[in-house]
Amino acid sequence: MGHNFIAGKLLSKINNPNDLKKLAVTELADLSDELRQYIIDVVCELPGHFGASLGVVELTVALHYAFNTPYDQIVWDVGHQAYAHKILTERRDKFHTQRLLNGLSGFPNRAESKYDAFGTGHSSTSISAALGLSMASKLKGETDRHVVAVIGDGALTGGMAFEGLNNAGVQNSNLLVILNDNEMAIDENVGAFKEYLVDITTSRTYNKLKDEVWNITGRLKKFGPNTQGLIQSIDNGLKAILLKQGNLFEAMNFRYFGPIDGHDVEYMTRVLGDLKNIQGPKLLHVKTVKGKGFKQAEANQTKWHAPGHFDKKTGEIIKPDIDKPLPPKFQDVFGKTILELAQKNDKILGITPAMPSGCSLNIMMRAMPERTFDVGIAEQHAVTFSAGLAAEGFIPFCNIYSSFMQRAYDQVIHDVALQNLNVVFCLDRGGLVGEDGATHHGAYDLAFMRTVPNLIVSAPMNEVELRNIMYTAQANMYGPFSIRYPRGRGNIADWEKDFELIPIGKARTIRAGNDIAVLTIGNTGMFVEDIRVLLEQSGVNYAHYDMRFLKPIDEDLLHEVFKKFTNIITIEDGTINGGLGSAVAEFMVDNNYSANIKRMGIPDRFIEHGTPMQLYAICGFDPDSIFREIISLVNSKTTIKGKVSY
Amino acid sequence: MGHNFIAGKLLSKINNPNDLKKLAVTELADLSDELRQYIIDVVCELPGHFGASLGVVELTVALHYAFNTPYDQIVWDVGHQAYAHKILTERRDKFHTQRLLNGLSGFPNRAESKYDAFGTGHSSTSISAALGLSMASKLKGETDRHVVAVIGDGALTGGMAFEGLNNAGVQNSNLLVILNDNEMAIDENVGAFKEYLVDITTSRTYNKLKDEVWNITGRLKKFGPNTQGLIQSIDNGLKAILLKQGNLFEAMNFRYFGPIDGHDVEYMTRVLGDLKNIQGPKLLHVKTVKGKGFKQAEANQTKWHAPGHFDKKTGEIIKPDIDKPLPPKFQDVFGKTILELAQKNDKILGITPAMPSGCSLNIMMRAMPERTFDVGIAEQHAVTFSAGLAAEGFIPFCNIYSSFMQRAYDQVIHDVALQNLNVVFCLDRGGLVGEDGATHHGAYDLAFMRTVPNLIVSAPMNEVELRNIMYTAQANMYGPFSIRYPRGRGNIADWEKDFELIPIGKARTIRAGNDIAVLTIGNTGMFVEDIRVLLEQSGVNYAHYDMRFLKPIDEDLLHEVFKKFTNIITIEDGTINGGLGSAVAEFMVDNNYSANIKRMGIPDRFIEHGTPMQLYAICGFDPDSIFREIISLVNSKTTIKGKVSY
Repeated sequence: MGHNFIAGKLLSKINNPNDLKKLAVTELADLSDELRQYIIDVVCELPGHFGASLGVVELTVALHYAFNTPYDQIVWDVGHQAYAHKILTERRDKFHTQRLLNGLSGFPNRAESKYDAFGTGHSSTSISAALGLSMASKLKGETDRHVVAVIGDGALTGGMAFEGLNNAGVQNSNLLVILNDNEMAIDENVGAFKEYLVDITTSRTYNKLKDEVWNITGRLKKFGPNTQGLIQSIDNGLKAILLKQGNLFEAMNFRYFGPIDGHDVEYMTRVLGDLKNIQGPKLLHVKTVKGKGFKQAEANQTKWHAPGHFDKKTGEIIKPDIDKPLPPKFQDVFGKTILELAQKNDKILGITPAMPSGCSLNIMMRAMPERTFDVGIAEQHAVTFSAGLAAEGFIPFCNIYSSFMQRAYDQVIHDVALQNLNVVFCLDRGGLVGEDGATHHGAYDLAFMRTVPNLIVSAPMNEVELRNIMYTAQANMYGPFSIRYPRGRGNIADWEKDFELIPIGKARTIRAGNDIAVLTIGNTGMFVEDIRVLLEQSGVNYAHYDMRFLKPIDEDLLHEVFKKFTNIITIEDGTINGGLGSAVAEFMVDNNYSANIKRMGIPDRFIEHGTPMQLYAICGFDPDSIFREIISLVNSKTTIKGKVSY
Repeated sequence: MGHNFIAGKLLSKINNPNDLKKLAVTELADLSDELRQYIIDVVCELPGHFGASLGVVELTVALHYAFNTPYDQIVWDVGHQAYAHKILTERRDKFHTQRLLNGLSGFPNRAESKYDAFGTGHSSTSISAALGLSMASKLKGETDRHVVAVIGDGALTGGMAFEGLNNAGVQNSNLLVILNDNEMAIDENVGAFKEYLVDITTSRTYNKLKDEVWNITGRLKKFGPNTQGLIQSIDNGLKAILLKQGNLFEAMNFRYFGPIDGHDVEYMTRVLGDLKNIQGPKLLHVKTVKGKGFKQAEANQTKWHAPGHFDKKTGEIIKPDIDKPLPPKFQDVFGKTILELAQKNDKILGITPAMPSGCSLNIMMRAMPERTFDVGIAEQHAVTFSAGLAAEGFIPFCNIYSSFMQRAYDQVIHDVALQNLNVVFCLDRGGLVGEDGATHHGAYDLAFMRTVPNLIVSAPMNEVELRNIMYTAQANMYGPFSIRYPRGRGNIADWEKDFELIPIGKARTIRAGNDIAVLTIGNTGMFVEDIRVLLEQSGVNYAHYDMRFLKPIDEDLLHEVFKKFTNIITIEDGTINGGLGSAVAEFMVDNNYSANIKRMGIPDRFIEHGTPMQLYAICGFDPDSIFREIISLVNSKTTIKGKVSY
């Protein structure tokens, strides 16, 4: 790659956990510093997740030192915290390739390394997965084998983590859950549970109880010298009982240990060693600082979750030089538009499951804290909570990344669509997202949302369309309404125009023509605009329709298209199993038309990481592939057009 | 309906909660008895859910007496406990129509009554929905308005309920959660949390602490007469602290009250009245007995969850007279087959989220308790836990009802398919389920499972095929494998034959013919067999192919079909948006064929309740509709067949 990163003196000798174990425990703090520096050196040049991985450097060293990996297994919840783990497990020399095409994944990946016990990109899966691994070991009689789930306090708010704890508490497996408590998700962690963790941590519960007992027993002092010892024994008894009975994790049958300092690597190594000898489900509460060791990242943890390029000396985040205004990010079009709409329509509310900065709802949140809700990492709850608000006449805009909306499919059907409630789903990160790879591509939403009755399924092509479709969704009570848009920037810097109503279920003619009909939905329309000149120079008189709505699909337009064109291309940034191409094929057979249809989209396989444009090309719907396909179809001899007569 | 049910003296005067409030509080116990008797009278003749509704009779009376419904709102989690609620809210005269076509729904339904604040068929949604309603009231300034969520201890194990609690704890809304604790889901409730509730209930926690303190302070006795009062004050102090701090719900910022006797209607009325004056989120723990007041139902709660017809005097469940062996239920084919397979293949494990009797995994569970896992109402966990087991080389059969699998769509993609793990999904209740209605129809699984890369999607046509496809799925490591089958009985009494391997992705020719190709998947194949004689008598020489696999679809067969036939019918017990018909249409356009295709299946709207056959007819794919469609297509003049040439 042309990059040459130098590991420190200790780190340079370590290729795997066996090498690590050759160090003295007193050297682990220095190793941790070197490891942290190595991550900083690489990530400042090759952007990736940052804060989470810095926070768990010492924990990672301690785990691989104390446990016998890969025989013992570590499951890293939301695996972007696993950079130190990757570096210590035979991947230091490739670490700078991560998130690049054909390079390392940004998340743990079973196919990549035997040390990656389970793939984790979505939140809150680690306890369930680790319990499965652990029960499997038990069934195989491997009583000496340990399984560790490392989960953040943010991820622990996901209901699935609770389901896992509830089940693990009654399975007598050798499971260790490490609660990595930094009081953050990507944004600050929210919810009652977070307050509870602070409560445990500051020992308020215990201290309060102790104080109370002290007050009561204080009155005993007059009884003489024995009293002091007595108080001590009450105190110890209470502590034991309180830790055993009064703790939420103990309530789930876990043995609870901690909280301990997650940056004291020697101490953690000792604690982990001790825990190996304790059978049954146990939880170790570790306090860490997100971004630990990099001042700016500690100070602004949300900004430094995944900062992009930065200067490792000054801590300045490097923005590319620009000579004209960049088009906005789609997420900011959402964020600014919802605030503008909410200022005019007091029924509008904003809901996000732990992504206020990622989806830019934080813009409305700052202006209208009482009308916005960050409900924690809890997609299922976010949707049904929105349904409850809508049942009382509000119009909640519920913003969930496309790939995370997979978590709330049932709630979309059962709680929103079945009751025909006016919830507006805004699906950010629809389509291929690039470097985050297979776990994060929004590849399925067009197909799975299309199955849901009553739901309007839309995908605006650009910033102005996004703005207008949001305006339209709140202007009338249409029932459930879904709007999906891609990650990243659009192409219209001057997008803040007057609002216009968009007719529901109506496509938009981008270019009239006679040779071939190109039907796009969402961002793929921009790809066709990118090759407009090229096509015209090639003498192709193509027609381009931006469908805008996958459901209801514009049947009037489709009748026109099938009557007029022999060759039709459908292009979507989503799976070709069940999306736009399928809807058009269904329309054709239901209406007895015949035509030559080429369906372009994400094929029926998992797509790894790379830049978005690399991935569009791999899937065959980047502008160049589209150009070639159009040329090839127009030049082929096609003779049948119009309605099939039987 | 020809039925005439007589309400008791008090109940007969009550049409709505206003009438109820005219009764003296001392009359509520008698009213509850009459209400219970009325439910027994109706349900013994017109089968429905039974145990859950009997258990909450007093709670329902107390709620409507204490609160001002419908202004105050009650959300009934998994609404099959809402029978008494329906009877008290203007629906007694229609109660005997419930679950029948055009009759009342078996679940709360916003479209049916203003008293049904939120529709609930799936578990664990009530807290989220109620919080939404409650925050909406708060935003509207309705400070006098109360929202109550009634949730069972089983439903509380669903992660979504935890997400709701976590969020509710920091929203200062007027929300009351009533924990209806009967230690049961449909089957006995499981998990650490259940044990915790028993713990609270029996006051073990508190008692243990008290004993400990007693032991310690016991030594103080020698100090004189003041000691007793002192002990008392320690005791009270501890109790207050323990209830405030040591309770799981208090940890979530809820004020916790109870447990109280859920069958003491007068006392509950008083408690609920008091709770109305307490602001903020609060939880009332109510102990009830599922099936209360009907001896047999109390004694065998799983059997009496939904018993069918029964004799209300003897408590005998009435089985229809039969003169020959009935075909088995599909669920029992699953249950018996998995045990048989597991006896030969020690890699096979069985996983169910709280449905051991509903899916018949209990057959294996009794024989092999250590190789079966009831993980509680926790579909997401069930799937990822299975993935963990598969990652270590086991073959988990994870059985989840089709409509509940909607909850685990993300986990199927992210934790199983992406890692290509050998989990076998068994989707019971695929297709229209009949009387349980819109919330429970398995209408979407064929379409949404087809979007998932790496996943084999199958649907056996009958009992023998189900048996053989299960055998096939475990015989080789194919990666993720989905098998869906319908609710109810098949048609082959003599189904336990020797196992046969089924070639993956290969269809089965049921009947060769020349006039028309009928492609079915799953149970709809039986519908075509039902009309075989009729069609042959009509002189139609149809071909019938049981596709068996939706993915990979049998492309060899489809090439043959499109080359030979002009008329093709696809029939599936699933949504026509994205299922078999779509896959065939996609194949046609991708391969440049042309044909007249009729896609039959569940249309793009919600289908209510009725008998399965009534609903198939409404959707237009019952045997009669299929017959008419075939006749009509064969008799129409069709001239184009074979490949389109361009």
